Amino acid sequence: MKNYRMLEPLDIKITGGILGEKRRLVSEVTIPYIGRALCDEVPGIRKSGSVENFRIASGELRKEFHGLVSQDSDLFKWMEAASLALAEKKERNFPEGMEAAELEELAALLEKCQMKDGYLNTYYIINGLKGKWSYLKESCQLYCAGHLLEAAVTNYEVTGERSLLEIAMGYADCIDKAFGAEEGKIHGYDGHAEIELALYRLYEATGIEKYRNLANFFVEERGKQPYFFALEKGNEGVTGNLVYELRENDFHHSQSHLPVREQKEAVGHAVKAAYFYTAVADKARLCRDEKLYEAVERLWEDVTEKKMFLTGAIGSSEYGESFTYAYDLPGDLMYGETCAAIGLFLWGYHMLRMDTDRKYSDVMERTFFNGILGGISEDGKKFFYTNALEIDPERCKKRKDYGHLEIERQSWFDCPCCPPNIARLILSFNRYMYTASIRELNIHLFAPSTADIEGWHVEQYTEYPTEGKIMLVVERKGEGKGQLRIRIPGWCESFLVKVNGEKAKGILEKGYLLLEEDFGCKKTIELELDIPLKKVYANDKVKSLAGKAAVMRGPLVYCLEQADNGELFHLFFKEDGKLEMGKTGTVLAEGYRMDGPDTGLYAYQKPHYRTENIKLMPYYRWNNRGAGQMRVFLGERKR
Amino acid sequence: MKNYRMLEPLDIKITGGILGEKRRLVSEVTIPYIGRALCDEVPGIRKSGSVENFRIASGELRKEFHGLVSQDSDLFKWMEAASLALAEKKERNFPEGMEAAELEELAALLEKCQMKDGYLNTYYIINGLKGKWSYLKESCQLYCAGHLLEAAVTNYEVTGERSLLEIAMGYADCIDKAFGAEEGKIHGYDGHAEIELALYRLYEATGIEKYRNLANFFVEERGKQPYFFALEKGNEGVTGNLVYELRENDFHHSQSHLPVREQKEAVGHAVKAAYFYTAVADKARLCRDEKLYEAVERLWEDVTEKKMFLTGAIGSSEYGESFTYAYDLPGDLMYGETCAAIGLFLWGYHMLRMDTDRKYSDVMERTFFNGILGGISEDGKKFFYTNALEIDPERCKKRKDYGHLEIERQSWFDCPCCPPNIARLILSFNRYMYTASIRELNIHLFAPSTADIEGWHVEQYTEYPTEGKIMLVVERKGEGKGQLRIRIPGWCESFLVKVNGEKAKGILEKGYLLLEEDFGCKKTIELELDIPLKKVYANDKVKSLAGKAAVMRGPLVYCLEQADNGELFHLFFKEDGKLEMGKTGTVLAEGYRMDGPDTGLYAYQKPHYRTENIKLMPYYRWNNRGAGQMRVFLGERKR
Repeated sequence: MKNYRMLEPLDIKITGGILGEKRRLVSEVTIPYIGRALCDEVPGIRKSGSVENFRIASGELRKEFHGLVSQDSDLFKWMEAASLALAEKKERNFPEGMEAAELEELAALLEKCQMKDGYLNTYYIINGLKGKWSYLKESCQLYCAGHLLEAAVTNYEVTGERSLLEIAMGYADCIDKAFGAEEGKIHGYDGHAEIELALYRLYEATGIEKYRNLANFFVEERGKQPYFFALEKGNEGVTGNLVYELRENDFHHSQSHLPVREQKEAVGHAVKAAYFYTAVADKARLCRDEKLYEAVERLWEDVTEKKMFLTGAIGSSEYGESFTYAYDLPGDLMYGETCAAIGLFLWGYHMLRMDTDRKYSDVMERTFFNGILGGISEDGKKFFYTNALEIDPERCKKRKDYGHLEIERQSWFDCPCCPPNIARLILSFNRYMYTASIRELNIHLFAPSTADIEGWHVEQYTEYPTEGKIMLVVERKGEGKGQLRIRIPGWCESFLVKVNGEKAKGILEKGYLLLEEDFGCKKTIELELDIPLKKVYANDKVKSLAGKAAVMRGPLVYCLEQADNGELFHLFFKEDGKLEMGKTGTVLAEGYRMDGPDTGLYAYQKPHYRTENIKLMPYYRWNNRGAGQMRVFLGERKR
Repeated sequence: MKNYRMLEPLDIKITGGILGEKRRLVSEVTIPYIGRALCDEVPGIRKSGSVENFRIASGELRKEFHGLVSQDSDLFKWMEAASLALAEKKERNFPEGMEAAELEELAALLEKCQMKDGYLNTYYIINGLKGKWSYLKESCQLYCAGHLLEAAVTNYEVTGERSLLEIAMGYADCIDKAFGAEEGKIHGYDGHAEIELALYRLYEATGIEKYRNLANFFVEERGKQPYFFALEKGNEGVTGNLVYELRENDFHHSQSHLPVREQKEAVGHAVKAAYFYTAVADKARLCRDEKLYEAVERLWEDVTEKKMFLTGAIGSSEYGESFTYAYDLPGDLMYGETCAAIGLFLWGYHMLRMDTDRKYSDVMERTFFNGILGGISEDGKKFFYTNALEIDPERCKKRKDYGHLEIERQSWFDCPCCPPNIARLILSFNRYMYTASIRELNIHLFAPSTADIEGWHVEQYTEYPTEGKIMLVVERKGEGKGQLRIRIPGWCESFLVKVNGEKAKGILEKGYLLLEEDFGCKKTIELELDIPLKKVYANDKVKSLAGKAAVMRGPLVYCLEQADNGELFHLFFKEDGKLEMGKTGTVLAEGYRMDGPDTGLYAYQKPHYRTENIKLMPYYRWNNRGAGQMRVFLGERKR
């Protein structure tokens, strides 16, 4: 089992391409936008109250807490993302925006709010500390804390400043005093996993072992009998501020129905699951625990081979924002929260830190270019919370059971977890591209970039995923052969590789092309992936997709929009029909349009089908032209 | 506008066929079964408490009210059905069961419960009369009263006994004192329409005009502004016993958003809608109000041309058990309450009383042989509350949004409205077969039977709907030509008719074959309807059915069951494929089974299709062999 470190934001510079564009958009537009939204300064959107809550908690303002118990986490996620934006701007030598000053001010505000014992949660500071550590099932206290820890670590990595880190460590110490296996401590955990992975990050950033030990405790404690959530005191008066309140005995929802080692399939809230399993992976890695790795690998396979939508979205049901059962993947009625796709991406990355296996990085790529990127608008100011594979606006507006699906990206949400989360994910994409040690460099994701890591210098020149050509310049400090592993995506059926202009062979190892060379002198590697434009079919166990096909090109899922094709529910792909690239990244597919019957509600009269070219565009670019129908899968017809 | 009287239960005898069988089953098995269930004497099923509540209200027992506020209506519907069972047994010269004695005992019990002022509702008698006439939006007081009135009228028609009728009239008088346009009376109406149509029945049975006038008031008052439900006192402490509690301002749910004359489309709870529109039809007829007829005709067309499932089921959404919007007919996620199909049938009949138009009777036939008959098991003791066109047991068990769909017929329900309702509908089928006046006999529904009505004697000999041959013997008392109208079903594309062995012509009038003859001497009419076995397609505006077909033969909708075909979600009909009759009423269709891909969750590999014969059976006969998948519509493939 490997134990690759997580790269730091400044280790890798993205130098262009889709990633460059998106990161720049997020850095220049989305970060300021969300920052203002959290300060309630964007006219016409719902109040966040996030910064205001801290001003109330600090004593600056006398008002009531506003929003959900999870509200602090939105600001913390923004602080992490804003720190990453500082790094992104440094990469481009772009002048700093307001973020640096805002982050310092916020750190000062947080310091003012923090209790002497380190506790820092505005809901309970404002509403009375008697609720502190109560109703962990739904109160999100440790969840919020986790995001503070993550923000602090990232901020420290980018700025070298310790002020936020000290606050976070103070809070982590407070949590460590309250929770643990020792007598007198709370033998519990949070309903929404997050603190676990955050404590591992804090441990890896600081080397302080008690943070790792506390995370270990949380990971192993969840699911033990008698159930902590059945024992702890129930909800007392925070009803209006809760994100959730499911049945008291729904332990599956928070993955606390079984110790994780005994869990054989992913259940419950998809975000909670992904965050928890990420921490489980960290524990397996840090403790070199093969059994635990097997458990979390089994859960990974359950999710990605049975419960993942084509776009990498997860969460088949609005009820509990949750997984349902194997192969239940109804693209119209699904949930597919943006945060869940982000969680899946992160989980995959933390698996890669142990094992360079394409089964992790392929999913990261799939979910990034579809389920995640689709969550943000081209103007950087609107967001999807849910990400369905089929939208009929009329149905979503008029049917209660489809009412959870947004027809258009939204400027803000009552529970605004997704906007800052997608911002920080896009801005941290670079750190997930590689894992490395002195002898090994593993390339997981492709984007034009330069990096200096563990003695390796690597440059990527590519238009990926628009093109399959990737030129790498690789050099390593140190003697002897180094191992370079380059992911050959699972969708790629053939590829060519040259090293310094010479055709090379290499071997495939868990989907990675392994090149063993003396990289002491710079090598130029030209990789040409065949990036096919093809129809994709779901496993026949996915009942809702029987007889249907979707179009993909490389990692990109395509979709139809009403703006291009009119009424979408009358369209079918032609079986074995041609697909070809159109203008501006679109695809044209041969297809049919159904006409009639239109005599009465039911008739013997057969419908008529006429040929029609169907226009598709990358899924992540949909809904930038107003509301309309959208479909990913269509039925296929012979003629 | 015509004004045909409603025939009485003893006017027409069913002499065999499917109807004969089903009526006998209901009379001999279902009626005793439900009777015992209402007395809480069936082991292993949920408590009803229905009869017990009356024993508590009468003072015989000291206990708490059990069940929903609508509970009284279940007993009343059973009393109506049991009265009809007496008639059914008389038809066959079959000895009376316990029903006659039980009905008498129950009448005595009701008399004991009835307050001096006539009020008779066990929930409010037991829980204190201060709630009387309160929270009409959801308290079901007038709804329950309506079913008492209906039971009493039917009981009187069958037995000639007045005891139950007197109780009902006492209650109706009490209601009349409380409600009306006059000052000091409540200017309100019930959240669940029923009292209106019941008062019209009471008026037509007794000739007492105040009942008609009160019904007229209720019909016209609903939907007036300011809204009664917004003005009346809200719910006070009956939460646990309510059937419903939707948003306070959801006036559409009870069709009280607009005066009915202004309603242009059917909205809200499908049963409430059908019952209300039935009463509206009665008012139009009794008041010879053409404008009101036009309003209710427009609503009929909205429902039957835009919101009705192939089986005649209505109610597209579980939320509010309600209609949604035009052409929203998802056969898997629908509701399709048995009571709503019954309501649609009754509404159609009350339209026929004004106008002999196939658009009413075709729907009655469709819903009877599919949406209604499917609601009861072959053993007569199990019932569907919801009637979907597609069932996947796993999906219904594991997905919250499909959780309202029963996988199998149930022995009983917390809200057991459907079992006694289907019993009374099947037992009263005979009275809906004809409308007649001295000069006219209109034959709407076909079943082996004999009838003597308005001077007409008519005998039907037929295996309908198994066969399309119907022999009629018709004789009329009185001089001159009579008009005989025979419905030619909308699904029938050709037919032959002979009168006394001679080919006859007749003309088609609103879908009825009109024969004008001197029926003074008995005539034998041989009608041969071509009863085709065909595929049926939905209007292309029904997005969920694009590319799909179902199989029908005459009025019967067919379905696939897993017991015959294995996994149903891999099956497709062959376009233009053959259909042929199989054994025991089944149908064989040419089709295809999809195999694969089964390599991973998503693959480039195309599925393979192999030919397979598909076995279908009448929809109403499904789920008599245990739980399993069921589908009505399948996708079609060329090859």
